[in-house]
Amino acid sequence: MSPGLQNLSTRVAACLIGLLPLIANAADDLIWREVNPENLVFMELVEGQVTIELNPMFAPKTVRQFRKLVQDGFYNGLSFYRVIDGFVAQGGDGSDLGELSLVPLIDAEFEAEISGDVEFTEVQKDDLFAAGTGFIDGFAVGRDSSGKNAWLTHCPGVVAMARNDSPNSSRTDFYIVIGQAPRYLDRNMNVFGRVIDGMDVVQRIQRGPANENGIIQDETKSSRIRSMTLASDVPEDERLTAFVLDTNSKAFKKLLKNRRNRTQKFFHNKPPKVLDVCQVPMAGRVTL
Amino acid sequence: MSPGLQNLSTRVAACLIGLLPLIANAADDLIWREVNPENLVFMELVEGQVTIELNPMFAPKTVRQFRKLVQDGFYNGLSFYRVIDGFVAQGGDGSDLGELSLVPLIDAEFEAEISGDVEFTEVQKDDLFAAGTGFIDGFAVGRDSSGKNAWLTHCPGVVAMARNDSPNSSRTDFYIVIGQAPRYLDRNMNVFGRVIDGMDVVQRIQRGPANENGIIQDETKSSRIRSMTLASDVPEDERLTAFVLDTNSKAFKKLLKNRRNRTQKFFHNKPPKVLDVCQVPMAGRVTL
Repeated sequence: MSPGLQNLSTRVAACLIGLLPLIANAADDLIWREVNPENLVFMELVEGQVTIELNPMFAPKTVRQFRKLVQDGFYNGLSFYRVIDGFVAQGGDGSDLGELSLVPLIDAEFEAEISGDVEFTEVQKDDLFAAGTGFIDGFAVGRDSSGKNAWLTHCPGVVAMARNDSPNSSRTDFYIVIGQAPRYLDRNMNVFGRVIDGMDVVQRIQRGPANENGIIQDETKSSRIRSMTLASDVPEDERLTAFVLDTNSKAFKKLLKNRRNRTQKFFHNKPPKVLDVCQVPMAGRVTL
Repeated sequence: MSPGLQNLSTRVAACLIGLLPLIANAADDLIWREVNPENLVFMELVEGQVTIELNPMFAPKTVRQFRKLVQDGFYNGLSFYRVIDGFVAQGGDGSDLGELSLVPLIDAEFEAEISGDVEFTEVQKDDLFAAGTGFIDGFAVGRDSSGKNAWLTHCPGVVAMARNDSPNSSRTDFYIVIGQAPRYLDRNMNVFGRVIDGMDVVQRIQRGPANENGIIQDETKSSRIRSMTLASDVPEDERLTAFVLDTNSKAFKKLLKNRRNRTQKFFHNKPPKVLDVCQVPMAGRVTL
């Protein structure tokens, strides 16, 4: 039983025979899309690097303001001051009240009208929280029964602006979803990006006490943002490149189909042929 | 913008005015149930303490074997050798293959027949993955259309036995769900417990490489179990006590109702009146 004496090849074999079918899904065929450096943000935490893709299609004003704040070094040195395990990690300067801030407010960008030429890869009709779900350019979205209005869904890793009661009160502070998708927030927040790499780092962000709404009173105990950098501001030869799954590709649609129809003999009770759009693994990869 | 100069009361006020309505839900009225020490396991990791409640109603054989393994010190010193961010952290001695293990196999305990006198607190009819969802004694469950067969759902924090293709091949290695609920595994695994405290600790478990199925080849890099202890084996005056929400209580049913009907003016688009059983916050608390 001593772990030091274990036979690693036995262990690996066990896993390959064991749980592998649960995640292996024609991964070799997948096609990757390079993230536009204008939409790529590297957030350096003490815990490690987090890579975020911004989504100007759904939240153009929010992305514009966030980009500027990043370029101004606004977030450098600020902390995650409200962190509720299983829910959100919220960071920034805590100026949501607005009275003391010179940063302008951002209008509501809760959903978007989707023109007919935007490709939508369907995941699920009659999802619990939406008439339909799917992916648009790598982002999980919900849409209404007309199919014309869509919104970025609150899946784990989603990045959105905090706000007060007014729909137009977003400003600087943002949150990252770190738990089971709080889909009841859909269509109520300025969702403007998603973590494409480094969710393991995000999960190490120091939590606040649950009975105090996650607020970390002692700032020396909170996780801190060392810096945020927009990739397009880095000289091209020093710049990291990020890739995400091409959700318009045939290979991705095949992956969805395989996840929906699980034929492996591992499944003694065949799962219902449905998919939770937030449960499709969508991590990206970052390389030099 | 210097975080050291921030006005914390402003920050707190911002939060109270801001996102508070999203989670505050008659929390003051909640009734807590003490966890039976026979079903309470303290898992000490290098990263901190994780508290698990076992569920002998749904998985009597698995719980019996797990209890014995804990009491024998079987897990002490073993590591989480397969950890996929957003999916599962799997720990144990990697002996799923069985050939080298003296530990007996466990029969499938994928679902249970629920007698009429078991109280079921309904959460959602026509859930995406089940005819109905709800809680039985603090555990999230799905049930079929007859209402007679129920199973523990794969919510974040759920603890289940790994296995090979045979339904009766569970033995020692277990996993904890660390990401968006992989509900397609429901009715296919021996789910036997849930983390009631310390999911923040679980989220710090070292991940393996995603493209290698999460397997951590270099064991010195994996997170390790220092010890596991069954609470009932600790002298009563030294023993920690754990409490979980009483899901049969009126206060809990009111909490569900409030989450389903969000009346706060924060919500400019009223969320659909549905609930994801895995998104109801269910953390417990542990005290001396």
